[in-house]
Amino acid sequence: MGDSAFLATKKQRGRPKKSAEENKENQKSLIHSGLSLLTQKGFGVTGLDEITKNAGLPKGSFYAYYASKEVFGLAVLESYSNYIHKMLDKYLLNQSRTPLNRIDDYIMQVRKNMVRYNFARGSLIGNIGQEVSTLPDTYRIELTNVIIEWQQKVENCLLDAQKMGEIKGNINCAEKADFFWSGLEGAILKAKIEHLPGPLDNFKKSFRKSLKN
Amino acid sequence: MGDSAFLATKKQRGRPKKSAEENKENQKSLIHSGLSLLTQKGFGVTGLDEITKNAGLPKGSFYAYYASKEVFGLAVLESYSNYIHKMLDKYLLNQSRTPLNRIDDYIMQVRKNMVRYNFARGSLIGNIGQEVSTLPDTYRIELTNVIIEWQQKVENCLLDAQKMGEIKGNINCAEKADFFWSGLEGAILKAKIEHLPGPLDNFKKSFRKSLKN
Repeated sequence: MGDSAFLATKKQRGRPKKSAEENKENQKSLIHSGLSLLTQKGFGVTGLDEITKNAGLPKGSFYAYYASKEVFGLAVLESYSNYIHKMLDKYLLNQSRTPLNRIDDYIMQVRKNMVRYNFARGSLIGNIGQEVSTLPDTYRIELTNVIIEWQQKVENCLLDAQKMGEIKGNINCAEKADFFWSGLEGAILKAKIEHLPGPLDNFKKSFRKSLKN
Repeated sequence: MGDSAFLATKKQRGRPKKSAEENKENQKSLIHSGLSLLTQKGFGVTGLDEITKNAGLPKGSFYAYYASKEVFGLAVLESYSNYIHKMLDKYLLNQSRTPLNRIDDYIMQVRKNMVRYNFARGSLIGNIGQEVSTLPDTYRIELTNVIIEWQQKVENCLLDAQKMGEIKGNINCAEKADFFWSGLEGAILKAKIEHLPGPLDNFKKSFRKSLKN
């Protein structure tokens, strides 16, 4: 990240204001391109030229914006995580629905997104997660942190469900939130393979049942 | 390609029988090497030279044994599927345990394997599954078939549980078998990311609970 800031500075010498804006825009385009390609293909096989071309930028210009593929990948992960946080907040904090219905709504939104992209796009966590043993350990740590944060939001929603009496007091909400994410990631993977939404529907039902006493 | 095929032919001229055996042995070594690398790294990023070297065979000799990476990948998938079938039969047909305990035993064996490889190896279905939208459609179809077969074995075990009264008669065993595989794949992925067996333990508990009425 430091390097790209350096290059950005270099560019600014010529056309200071426009360059800075352009730079930001181009970085955004690269992230957007990375999100699309990485959720479809995974990290390792996606080439920098492909990412740059898909962003509509000149071939070979990648390093003007990011110091390395590794730095870029982490930036894409951060952007993806922010997107999921927004989606989680939208559904899990929706006071017009009961906590368990909010969780169902979230799963249904994931399902809708998968259908929209014809099951070609999965979860970035799933894609990068599968490759994690071949990537620098920063990735594993970052992925773990990302999941812990998401998990906390689901746990909070389950704690609300407990307060409202939707689930019993002896349910371990942290354990169930862990299960929520592994189950959801697995259902996304299976739906992606089968080109069918069934795994997401079955996960939704089974998650509900797993909360019963 | 031409070179290695030529070398293989040349070899066979001199010692026909041994060459045929050798060929088979070398194919086995390649599959074994592929299983190890593909479950760690995925399909796209694993190079043929790496697979060949890891198998202890001369660089560039890959094409003497397989026509293409695609053909090889499908052979690795078949070998992996056979391995899982054997493991499923070992645990799910174990008459000395009740059907639900058999399923628990299977999950515990997966857990043991992950700990043994220090969480570096995941599931080949998971790895190839994530990449599926970038691979020839043969892969998607093959993966789907493989999962259907495994799923059938879990469904049969759940039907046995129903017969023995371990679970109620109104449980949809096909749906639960679908959920079993998505949940297990997700738990393997999460354990791989976190380097912890927790997701597998939580999945085991939650799967049991999802079978209750």
